[in-house]
Amino acid sequence: MPGGAEATARPAVALDGFGAERGFDVLAAGARMAAADGIRMRVFGPPGDLELDGAEGIEVVPADDWIRNEEEPIAGVRTRPEASIVRAAADVSEGRSGALVSVGSTGATMAAATFGLKRLRSVKRPALAAVLPLPPGPVVFLDIGANEEARAQHLIQFAFLGAAFSAAVLGIAQPRVALLSNGTESSKGTPVVVEAHEALAGASGINFIGNVEGTDFAGVADVIVSDGFTGNVVLKTLEGTAKMVAGMIRTAARSNPIAAAGGLLMRPAMGPLREKFDPDSTGGAVLLGLRQPVVVGHGMSGEDGVANAVRLAARCIEQDAVPRTEALLREGHATRSELPGSA
Amino acid sequence: MPGGAEATARPAVALDGFGAERGFDVLAAGARMAAADGIRMRVFGPPGDLELDGAEGIEVVPADDWIRNEEEPIAGVRTRPEASIVRAAADVSEGRSGALVSVGSTGATMAAATFGLKRLRSVKRPALAAVLPLPPGPVVFLDIGANEEARAQHLIQFAFLGAAFSAAVLGIAQPRVALLSNGTESSKGTPVVVEAHEALAGASGINFIGNVEGTDFAGVADVIVSDGFTGNVVLKTLEGTAKMVAGMIRTAARSNPIAAAGGLLMRPAMGPLREKFDPDSTGGAVLLGLRQPVVVGHGMSGEDGVANAVRLAARCIEQDAVPRTEALLREGHATRSELPGSA
Repeated sequence: MPGGAEATARPAVALDGFGAERGFDVLAAGARMAAADGIRMRVFGPPGDLELDGAEGIEVVPADDWIRNEEEPIAGVRTRPEASIVRAAADVSEGRSGALVSVGSTGATMAAATFGLKRLRSVKRPALAAVLPLPPGPVVFLDIGANEEARAQHLIQFAFLGAAFSAAVLGIAQPRVALLSNGTESSKGTPVVVEAHEALAGASGINFIGNVEGTDFAGVADVIVSDGFTGNVVLKTLEGTAKMVAGMIRTAARSNPIAAAGGLLMRPAMGPLREKFDPDSTGGAVLLGLRQPVVVGHGMSGEDGVANAVRLAARCIEQDAVPRTEALLREGHATRSELPGSA
Repeated sequence: MPGGAEATARPAVALDGFGAERGFDVLAAGARMAAADGIRMRVFGPPGDLELDGAEGIEVVPADDWIRNEEEPIAGVRTRPEASIVRAAADVSEGRSGALVSVGSTGATMAAATFGLKRLRSVKRPALAAVLPLPPGPVVFLDIGANEEARAQHLIQFAFLGAAFSAAVLGIAQPRVALLSNGTESSKGTPVVVEAHEALAGASGINFIGNVEGTDFAGVADVIVSDGFTGNVVLKTLEGTAKMVAGMIRTAARSNPIAAAGGLLMRPAMGPLREKFDPDSTGGAVLLGLRQPVVVGHGMSGEDGVANAVRLAARCIEQDAVPRTEALLREGHATRSELPGSA
């Protein structure tokens, strides 16, 4: 009974076929890699360019229009129902696919998801979360830019959204959740951060460990919560500084022949480190708080990056990330109607 | 006429004799280094521990009490008039010294300066600025924590304070001034950042280049402006990430004997880089917007760090940093009474 088997199979991932800066070939190769793991996909893009004919588990849904990085995303999403990301989001909201993935414009993906998918009833505002590949373990950092301002009630919900994702998708039991602030004491921070701290310190269902500072990204907390403005600036500072320091060391290593010889000897040992900092390794950011999982991959993703973005979305489906998020919000009395200021 | 010569000499720097985490010896050695450059100092601390008897240009003013890092700084400064930092600040406000320097508690130094010295009449709020030793040139980054929240009028003044310091003390002609935001477009940022952007884009006397992102710390702007909460978190992220990446590379370099041999060959080439990242090289942060210069050095400063903090303060005096700041605020119509919302 193939019909029966299909009906009970896991939902497919809706993948935007446009927007991969390294080209259709790379996107298609990434999709094939994810399909090899048994993940079903519906890819919205030009069949001729994608060349995915006959790929097991992959259905190409023809789409010609798409929203580019440099376009105004909200206007684009509102006026172009045929754009690939809008159609992929509709596919998810109509239940034909179970999660949305794009490596195209972050703004367009967020706009298409926010307009096309529904928020969880218990959630006030979705938040964009990055999974930082830090030693000794991954850190979920949110909000990195879905909202430019946040009230205490939003930060409180971000804490629960991040904790649920960390537990469900990254498999971390009792993830340690912290607020990013300008000092570890509970009195430190803007009035909004201080208010959120007080509420989280008294909340149930969450392992809140207090404030962390910018020096404490690695090894202190599993989830770090911030408003979207600070989060975006801080994430880019982290990425920019890592690149700058690595570059300075590389330049110094080439400054004379002896150092250059040393650099050659060290090269193989740097492999795992390079892999660690490779944006392809995490699959990108996730938009939390909607009724279906949404993964925003890097535009510069290689095939590994595309495959990992799809795998991350599939893992969110498989691990029931969304229902577990709702359950955690209820357990912590952090649903929309239970939070202060939620008239 | 020795009296006459003394009357026209440059004012002394008031140096807090307490708070150096590496001990009195290191602080005294740093003071001697600065004195060798012809800088006069009045050092507030225990004469027996400082052992500065007979040091040319250095006068030790006996002080026994001091405010420790772990103490509540505002309460400490208010209730302990005999504390070394409070007395050093009084020495400056009474005109016996021309600038204040401490490597002790940042909070206590800021509180003593804010209460003990006066604000410039044209300035609404002082801001704490770090001088980041980045390639290709130093970047003045403010506010890094004097204020946890900022309105647009504060950010506008911070821009002028930073520009005046960059020009007067670092000698940068027409410093490029930018706002830190979550995107380079003028529409990006919190409403406060967007409002400040608009005002600065139309201001005279300042070379405003727009927004920069967290990835753009090096080589794009000479002065980067932020609210104190974001600034503090971002500065610590920058420092923490630089240390983390350097540490990861070091660990990888030791992971096998061949890599370790390579590391040894590379070591000498890393010297200038290590110096670049050494906090001692900048002398610390400066509190801008008061009627006298204030330098907040690192608690862990070595003798170079102490000497550089004193040199930075002396340079502020020598270069008329404060009068030049007032002039720039007037030129840009950014004085307290001219800014929007300054009832």
